[in-house]
Amino acid sequence: MSVAEGPTINTIAERAGVSIASVSRVLNGLPTREETVRRVLRAAEDLGYVPNSVARSLRNRRTDQVAFAMADIGNPVYLAMVREIQPVLKAAGYRLLLHSTDADVADELDVLRGLRERYVDGLIMSPLRGVTEDHVAAIAAARAPVVVIGSVPEGTPVDNVRTDSRTGVRLALDHLHALGRRRIGFLNGPLDTVPGGARAAAYREALDALGLPYDGDLVEVGDFYRQDGARAARALLGRAPDVDALMCANDLIALGALDVLRRAGREVPGDVAVVGMDDTDLASVAWPTLTSVSLGSAERGRAAARLLLDRLENGPREPRVVVVEPSLTVRASTTGVDPE
Amino acid sequence: MSVAEGPTINTIAERAGVSIASVSRVLNGLPTREETVRRVLRAAEDLGYVPNSVARSLRNRRTDQVAFAMADIGNPVYLAMVREIQPVLKAAGYRLLLHSTDADVADELDVLRGLRERYVDGLIMSPLRGVTEDHVAAIAAARAPVVVIGSVPEGTPVDNVRTDSRTGVRLALDHLHALGRRRIGFLNGPLDTVPGGARAAAYREALDALGLPYDGDLVEVGDFYRQDGARAARALLGRAPDVDALMCANDLIALGALDVLRRAGREVPGDVAVVGMDDTDLASVAWPTLTSVSLGSAERGRAAARLLLDRLENGPREPRVVVVEPSLTVRASTTGVDPE
Repeated sequence: MSVAEGPTINTIAERAGVSIASVSRVLNGLPTREETVRRVLRAAEDLGYVPNSVARSLRNRRTDQVAFAMADIGNPVYLAMVREIQPVLKAAGYRLLLHSTDADVADELDVLRGLRERYVDGLIMSPLRGVTEDHVAAIAAARAPVVVIGSVPEGTPVDNVRTDSRTGVRLALDHLHALGRRRIGFLNGPLDTVPGGARAAAYREALDALGLPYDGDLVEVGDFYRQDGARAARALLGRAPDVDALMCANDLIALGALDVLRRAGREVPGDVAVVGMDDTDLASVAWPTLTSVSLGSAERGRAAARLLLDRLENGPREPRVVVVEPSLTVRASTTGVDPE
Repeated sequence: MSVAEGPTINTIAERAGVSIASVSRVLNGLPTREETVRRVLRAAEDLGYVPNSVARSLRNRRTDQVAFAMADIGNPVYLAMVREIQPVLKAAGYRLLLHSTDADVADELDVLRGLRERYVDGLIMSPLRGVTEDHVAAIAAARAPVVVIGSVPEGTPVDNVRTDSRTGVRLALDHLHALGRRRIGFLNGPLDTVPGGARAAAYREALDALGLPYDGDLVEVGDFYRQDGARAARALLGRAPDVDALMCANDLIALGALDVLRRAGREVPGDVAVVGMDDTDLASVAWPTLTSVSLGSAERGRAAARLLLDRLENGPREPRVVVVEPSLTVRASTTGVDPE
């Protein structure tokens, strides 16, 4: 049994100006004078008393639960991660809880603050809008280990698993270029998200490397959902009907683009080749099946689970970074041939 | 402040044969003789002392968290439910935690038992293999309200949201019959699951009602995943090449069947019409887009969230049952025309 951090029954009693027995009665929910209850609760709050820390001491501060906070439960990239995270943790005796934050920074910070109450022993999170200074502060204040999937600011003291979406975009554009495509459009997600920003830069770099000119008419920005992909594809086709390929910042956007091309009577890949990103389950559900850049979602999930488990089992150590390399899965939406 | 249920610091002290101050020291994690720590922990365990009940009393027993235990995070039917459950609870100030139990009964019971430790204020669950006697006992012992989405044994004292998949199968077979199909195959899920059993019975009833003979060659049973649907479709096509329609027990099975029909060069719906069930997001991603029986996943999720919220806010009352009626969403896999 280790010495408790922070306030105890004794310091609460002192601050509230009541006896230790009174604090104990309040904590046990026994009938107590209202004024005493109020004073004890105010003192506990003032002292930043974290209720569960009492409870946790009874079983060595373990809840046997771990949480994964994902940006959007509707995006199968997180599903692929969950499928890998869950068995790793389950084998070690941990139950996995999931949060869907809708990429809302306030929600993410709320989950991080919740770690102070120790309803889980650790957290894996994937903040779509990046790790802000508030995140960094909340991670430092958390009383449980945290692993971030995604980019973090240089030097942030947290375990981190990331991929290299620049190389991923490059793989896709090299593939389209090798197939003879020269008017390669780009349907991106919001530029204020980490993947959106990185992929925008990567698209320009890849064009440069291939000696293709950058043409603003060939670029459209929307959100990361299917209907945004459809909207963006319609706008781009209207403006640049000679487009012969569409690079999409994720698979959902690509599905929206496929819908629009089909309704417009444009053949895929005959008229327009389409490439998605994330290589989710949906890529093989779509028809034509979708060529997609794999950013190793399964590998990233597995690596994050292992980093967390290591911290849970072996305690504090220097933060680690794992980088998962991208690859390209070629299917019918670029070659006309379904490999499966 | 209400009177605590169950054991308190006082009863633990009595059983352990130590002073109340000693129990308090142990609960606070202060340095204490090893023998005393051991005696207090054993007494606490013997008395079924639930650690967090102490903590909870500090803030009126609310965690502001609610959990949804779903059978399979990979099945978009649960995604549709989460999308409706989350906003209802969020608006009332609750954070939603998700569990994916893989339809494992032991996991489901574990989640129910976890309610005794009060890491959430309430639970919505969707047990794919049905509500067993163990579930009923665990629900009764839970110290938090529970809502079950799915069938429960008659008279189980729990809030319940269900659909009517028999009518759903009937809608699909009526539609196929009206289109002139007479050799209607059935790709079902496991018969020991609640939906599998109900849909098997419904298929026979619907054939009877339409005056079509039951033919065992036209029925194949697998699991509820896409690869099972593919396997089942291959087996059925091999045995009954004259099949002119496939009723599938969920959308994932139907997607597997579409893959197999495409590779076999069988036109959909020209040669074989295909109907799915659950009307998930995938139905409109597939090509041809999939006609599917909607079992009101979104409505069921919303109803479950509201029932739970009512119990959380207004306390105990008689259990309620909500039945959501099915409907049929007609798309290209039966008519050749995509309505969207």
